[in-house]
Amino acid sequence: MESVDHLADERGKASFDVDEMKVVWAGSRHVLELSERIARLVASDPAFQKDNRTTLGRKELFKNTLRKAAHAWKRIIELRLTEEEASKLRFYVDEPAFTDLHWGMFVPAIKGQGTEEQQQKWLPLAYKMQIIGCYAQTELGHGSNVQGLETTATFDPQTDEFIINSPTLTSSKWWPGGLGKVSTHAVVYARLITDGQDHGVHGFIVQLRSLDDHLPLEGITIGDIGTKFGNGAYNTMDNGVLRFDNVRIPRNQMLMRVSQVTREGKYVHSNVPRQLVYGTMVYVRQTIVADASCALSRAVCIATRYSAVRRQFGSQKGGVETQVIDYKTQQNRLFPLLASAYAFRFVGEWLKWLYTDVTERLQANDFSTLPEAHACTAGLKSLTTSATADGIEECRKLCGGHGYLCSSGLPELFAVYVPACTYEGDNVVLLLQVARFLMKTVSQLGSGKKPVGTTAYFLQVEHLMQCSSSARKAEDWLKPSVILEAFEARAVRMSVACAQRLGKFANLEEGFLELSADLIEAAVAHCQLIVVSKFIEKLKQNIPGKGVKDQLENLCNIYALFLLHKHLGDFLSTGVISSKQASLANDQLRSLYSQVRPNAVALVDAFNYTDHFLGSILGRYDGNVYPKLYEEAWKDPLNDSVVPDGYHEYVRPMLKQQLRNARL
Amino acid sequence: MESVDHLADERGKASFDVDEMKVVWAGSRHVLELSERIARLVASDPAFQKDNRTTLGRKELFKNTLRKAAHAWKRIIELRLTEEEASKLRFYVDEPAFTDLHWGMFVPAIKGQGTEEQQQKWLPLAYKMQIIGCYAQTELGHGSNVQGLETTATFDPQTDEFIINSPTLTSSKWWPGGLGKVSTHAVVYARLITDGQDHGVHGFIVQLRSLDDHLPLEGITIGDIGTKFGNGAYNTMDNGVLRFDNVRIPRNQMLMRVSQVTREGKYVHSNVPRQLVYGTMVYVRQTIVADASCALSRAVCIATRYSAVRRQFGSQKGGVETQVIDYKTQQNRLFPLLASAYAFRFVGEWLKWLYTDVTERLQANDFSTLPEAHACTAGLKSLTTSATADGIEECRKLCGGHGYLCSSGLPELFAVYVPACTYEGDNVVLLLQVARFLMKTVSQLGSGKKPVGTTAYFLQVEHLMQCSSSARKAEDWLKPSVILEAFEARAVRMSVACAQRLGKFANLEEGFLELSADLIEAAVAHCQLIVVSKFIEKLKQNIPGKGVKDQLENLCNIYALFLLHKHLGDFLSTGVISSKQASLANDQLRSLYSQVRPNAVALVDAFNYTDHFLGSILGRYDGNVYPKLYEEAWKDPLNDSVVPDGYHEYVRPMLKQQLRNARL
Repeated sequence: MESVDHLADERGKASFDVDEMKVVWAGSRHVLELSERIARLVASDPAFQKDNRTTLGRKELFKNTLRKAAHAWKRIIELRLTEEEASKLRFYVDEPAFTDLHWGMFVPAIKGQGTEEQQQKWLPLAYKMQIIGCYAQTELGHGSNVQGLETTATFDPQTDEFIINSPTLTSSKWWPGGLGKVSTHAVVYARLITDGQDHGVHGFIVQLRSLDDHLPLEGITIGDIGTKFGNGAYNTMDNGVLRFDNVRIPRNQMLMRVSQVTREGKYVHSNVPRQLVYGTMVYVRQTIVADASCALSRAVCIATRYSAVRRQFGSQKGGVETQVIDYKTQQNRLFPLLASAYAFRFVGEWLKWLYTDVTERLQANDFSTLPEAHACTAGLKSLTTSATADGIEECRKLCGGHGYLCSSGLPELFAVYVPACTYEGDNVVLLLQVARFLMKTVSQLGSGKKPVGTTAYFLQVEHLMQCSSSARKAEDWLKPSVILEAFEARAVRMSVACAQRLGKFANLEEGFLELSADLIEAAVAHCQLIVVSKFIEKLKQNIPGKGVKDQLENLCNIYALFLLHKHLGDFLSTGVISSKQASLANDQLRSLYSQVRPNAVALVDAFNYTDHFLGSILGRYDGNVYPKLYEEAWKDPLNDSVVPDGYHEYVRPMLKQQLRNARL
Repeated sequence: MESVDHLADERGKASFDVDEMKVVWAGSRHVLELSERIARLVASDPAFQKDNRTTLGRKELFKNTLRKAAHAWKRIIELRLTEEEASKLRFYVDEPAFTDLHWGMFVPAIKGQGTEEQQQKWLPLAYKMQIIGCYAQTELGHGSNVQGLETTATFDPQTDEFIINSPTLTSSKWWPGGLGKVSTHAVVYARLITDGQDHGVHGFIVQLRSLDDHLPLEGITIGDIGTKFGNGAYNTMDNGVLRFDNVRIPRNQMLMRVSQVTREGKYVHSNVPRQLVYGTMVYVRQTIVADASCALSRAVCIATRYSAVRRQFGSQKGGVETQVIDYKTQQNRLFPLLASAYAFRFVGEWLKWLYTDVTERLQANDFSTLPEAHACTAGLKSLTTSATADGIEECRKLCGGHGYLCSSGLPELFAVYVPACTYEGDNVVLLLQVARFLMKTVSQLGSGKKPVGTTAYFLQVEHLMQCSSSARKAEDWLKPSVILEAFEARAVRMSVACAQRLGKFANLEEGFLELSADLIEAAVAHCQLIVVSKFIEKLKQNIPGKGVKDQLENLCNIYALFLLHKHLGDFLSTGVISSKQASLANDQLRSLYSQVRPNAVALVDAFNYTDHFLGSILGRYDGNVYPKLYEEAWKDPLNDSVVPDGYHEYVRPMLKQQLRNARL
């Protein structure tokens, strides 16, 4: 099989060691090798093909997902894959399925909130998939406000059971993935009521469907909530609706690690700290940030390769036209996204460390860093998912008209990604939480309480409130110290300004509501600083490989200077930099684009994605775009016949002026 | 049939005459009445239902579109609708179809570029739909760069024919709507070659399919290019691929109004000015701007109504929660979009006038305003379509998780709208054209040549380069003169700064390429000024109806002050305003939100959209969202059976540990 590499020239231009960069991107040589092995396994297995996903009707699509999930599980068993390998396999199969919730939410919920006894009973069943579980929290009427959930779990001391009930239409569980058609069990969140008293929301293990015939158990109504955004995309998932008509479960199915209901119906707390919940939250959000860098890098990989393939304008009469990647307008949109993908990768890596750190502290009963860690992960979840969703769509536009075809892979990537902006905390709600934490940090500055972790820069508040940037020439903007100071000063000043204005409100809560738009901007400034500073920290590590560190430095600077330009109003209005300095930063940014340009294709090669995983003709590794686009078109079901179905009934009568008598 | 209006309270709060606002939005009482009549006609006709569009497979979906198009044409004939009514009917049917291209591109191309004789021959056939035409311009390898098209039309003097040919794979026509499966004819753009000489791109009428059996004629290969972004959405359109293998057409099928090929094969120009083409371009782009206001207003209508229905957080124990529309964070995202919808409506109205003006001038051989009109429409097309695409997605996010369901109507609205950012001129390419025109305007400032139309403010360049804003208190930002001066000064200064930096380049073209990102920002500043100034001009008209003008003034100010905040970096770095003044503008913006809040629902009611046209459960007029969402879910094909197709083959063997032997 001969193969041509249309991008060979581009690859030849790179001035760094791509293989070493692959290690940096993967996080370690171990992960790189494991990922490569599993990615190839999936790509070479015809059962995991995904080419036709965007043309299937909902039922066909869903059935196909069930098949893939079963096949994946079969392979996992046959090959005796480790947990790490199995999870990578599911990742490379790249199709949202009920298994995501089973492994990602149901199992962790039992592990985190169940007692030892409960874990011993339920986890082995779940590990073997003898039961399939989902996570039933959100309701038709309540998503963001978990405390407002309406489902009830009332203890009946006579029978030693809880009665799970959906008292209103809006209390119907709504959205849980895997619920609609597959799950046999769920962790259901409901208001615990004992002896007429409401103890707030707790988790309960509830069996939903018969293990014999898969029919919903008595008193339970379940269905799918309908088609979602995009072709293929999340429609492979059975997000579900669930209603309970006084369904009884044994008392020991309440998840009782933190609090219990006794046989007598007494509500008591164990000595396990409630803060454990926050540890789980840090974990989940860390995976979301990692997913963001993955999704963004896929889109950037497609857009970068196609920008190198595509030529438009700029030819001398009849000569070759200019590669669109050579246009500054293209670079100015594309390269900051390339830089963002790397930035999110490294901040995600750091979050992994943070999770370990938090866990160790929790085990030592040290809760001191929890609020900061919580705010930090909330903010980073919001920042990276919003930027990624917007970035994927920008990459699609960067591919011109062809980006609108499903065969580009970008429409599905966008549609499947965007829910990340809403689930696990709406991005705006999360930023408000960050802002509250920042306001608290500011208010405690005078007190003995020292800001920790990512808020430690508040220690230098006095300096940061009055410093002015030392940048005198464009190259000064390459200095990490200059960049950091500018981002720290901007963040501190925006927080302090908000705090001062809040202080003028008699009612603090009213102030929060009134100034929420400004508070959000302060939170964004803080979160962007975190990403920039973690990128800079990463560069302090020993990074081997010819030219690898140079490339990462360029990307780090592009990320920071691009943000500086985008949020110029913040930097100027707080007096952190002058217009002249802003203009120097912009000059430097343009020059950085020129340095990245010859390395761009190699920088996306370093993500090490197979063509199967990318699922994009525009992003093909070999750049052989046009013949393959042409080939792909003919596979559309509409091309099954030359004359379309409907011609005789509808088109011909129109052309022949015979509509009057036609039955339509 | 009893009906409850859950939004009655909201409607009661409005302090203006909604019916009069409907007239303002429609443009005239005549248009309002006509629209209402036709919208009802469509909504009440079961043949035009569109509920299930997002769940259909491609073939079913397409066949359904053919049916609707035939039914629409049947009704148009039966009811003897006028051209205006027929076009409204197609608009309210709200489903992209081959007829859009037939009426919107094929017929106008013949009208604009055909001779009298050609018009007499082809238009009657097209008017009766005895032939169906499309517009075959873009190719697999060329979209933006029309001059780079590769299809050839070579004159053969021996037979008096043109030979239409696709010499390369990339010369395949690609994207034309209506081409893939339906059109019998096309206006094909190809390089005209006579006697070995290339005269550039010209239009030719080519028959594609037999009028007897609909099969492609000899030498012609046609197909659909495959599935596109989104469920339903543009997949109702047969965007096509087309290749010619030396297809012969008579000489008189070249569109010869502007230039001709004689029987002897001589290429000659008529005395019809070539600039006529620009008149058509102004027309097409004006309709695109009108479409933008329509699409954005639909999204805003849905998000506003649902924001008034939805409640989350903020309750006192057990009390009613806060309507999300009461949160400043929601207002700060939603109300600028509401204001933009109105702003785009009015600038679109003005563009209609501009088109008339340009046409009259062309007829009088006055080409003086053409370049300005061309730049202005290019810029407004870019500005309004980008803002609308982003705005629809923002409205989707403003609806929380439920916005991700197709039943919210927003996913399809987004997917069907976004191509507007790419077709009829890529938005970035268009802004570069605007920037070139601005640079020319600046360079001619010293000369006798006066800037006209939307660039007339350059006459005051001296004042605008050195003025500083007179805003001293928040209310000063309500003065049109203060707003206009700030926007004019910002636009002038950004253009002049670019021109000065361009002047330092030895090679002007190189300068254009290097500074393109800044040039684009200058173009955006200019275009935003146009929208703001046309809104302000609109408010100088007599606008009857209680409170109507007040509301529009609020919206105009929100639009301007929101832009000022969003682009604060521009305003500060050019020294147009101070940080203090920016902060005052922000205070004023917040206060304007409070004034719009009680009128928000009424302001979207004024768009006068039927529930059928909106196609959104979240945007229902009566606000009866949750019961209807619940009802709708059960209609998904996946709910046809309780136990899903695939359970026995794939899920059960997993649960029963029998995968090893299963055939998947």
